[in-house]
Amino acid sequence: MDANTNDASRRRGEPRDGVPGRQMITRKALEIVSEHGHEALTISGLARALGVTPAAVHNHASSKQELLQWVQEEIMAGVDASAFCELPLDEALRRWARSYRDVFVHHAPLIPVIAVLPVGGSPRTLRMYESVARGFAAAGWPDEEIVDAIVALESFIFGSALDATAPLDIFDPGPHAASIPTFGGALRARRHPGRQAADAAFQQGLEAMIAGLLAAPAG
Amino acid sequence: MDANTNDASRRRGEPRDGVPGRQMITRKALEIVSEHGHEALTISGLARALGVTPAAVHNHASSKQELLQWVQEEIMAGVDASAFCELPLDEALRRWARSYRDVFVHHAPLIPVIAVLPVGGSPRTLRMYESVARGFAAAGWPDEEIVDAIVALESFIFGSALDATAPLDIFDPGPHAASIPTFGGALRARRHPGRQAADAAFQQGLEAMIAGLLAAPAG
Repeated sequence: MDANTNDASRRRGEPRDGVPGRQMITRKALEIVSEHGHEALTISGLARALGVTPAAVHNHASSKQELLQWVQEEIMAGVDASAFCELPLDEALRRWARSYRDVFVHHAPLIPVIAVLPVGGSPRTLRMYESVARGFAAAGWPDEEIVDAIVALESFIFGSALDATAPLDIFDPGPHAASIPTFGGALRARRHPGRQAADAAFQQGLEAMIAGLLAAPAG
Repeated sequence: MDANTNDASRRRGEPRDGVPGRQMITRKALEIVSEHGHEALTISGLARALGVTPAAVHNHASSKQELLQWVQEEIMAGVDASAFCELPLDEALRRWARSYRDVFVHHAPLIPVIAVLPVGGSPRTLRMYESVARGFAAAGWPDEEIVDAIVALESFIFGSALDATAPLDIFDPGPHAASIPTFGGALRARRHPGRQAADAAFQQGLEAMIAGLLAAPAG
């Protein structure tokens, strides 16, 4: 039983013979992690939430690590790396980075998990890296510079997704306003209010990093 | 009773009259978060770890949020923002960003917490922002661009600190090696092995972002 079955009842999320398939397990795992954080994900808790025995989950997923790789595979479907064979590198990087950040803004509790999760269990993540690497290679980048550039961009993307979930009053200095005249003035001068502030910071950083990378691949 | 007392026995971490002070509470809280993640930090669990009643902790810290702000204040002491009044902006940003990342590489479980924690309870964090903002202002940056640039750099720093804690085999493609010829070649061509790989990616990204920011403040 796998996630690609065409059986209509299973696609609606109903187990056949009371046995959940990979897709149902993955979605329930994602639900648990999104609502309660990744520490809350256990095989026994997942089985309880699915209304089955732990053995029924164990039949498919042998470990929490495997469950997380399924979750990774599921959510990476939202990342768009299709532009690297069509557009110039800077344009393709913009489109990829924006979609990648958007996905993790909506799954922020997964950031500290996915950022350090081995990718061998997620063919979709590997295909994404292959597309991005081809974009750099086609733009003339030497092999030895490509992975560092991708990792640097990803670090910025994950950090920016985290920042987008910060409370709007994160910089409120409370009783210390008088001690930060310059930073306080800069805060008041920001052009974008509320949630747009995080988007503006991401945009500025993304443009800076792409410009800096494409101006001078590190040597 | 506060953390700045000169009482020698208290500086060695021993409570007076069995009542822990802010410093002892903060250090134990940091220990718990570092070992078990921030979800494991509760006032009652902290009291148990300190061998006191929950009320003895409550006398000082009214909430988990307050405890986390004490932890933030404690670890931000390791971030060096002293160079902004001495060195050119690019040099000062390098020194600040490296020390900031180093601190969070050693406290990775705190990244998702501190990245979204209001800073009003941490005068040290506010002083850091003030120093960085003054560096940008002194270099001629318009007020309205400064916060976005700082947030973008911080996002990269937090994401890079997270990346530095990833397992060394994170990119191992497992059974899928044949599907990633370009990315696989780039992985084999990386110049820096093991732990140094994360440092190299951070370096490349930091140089790119600083160059990009200083070449063209967003308009």
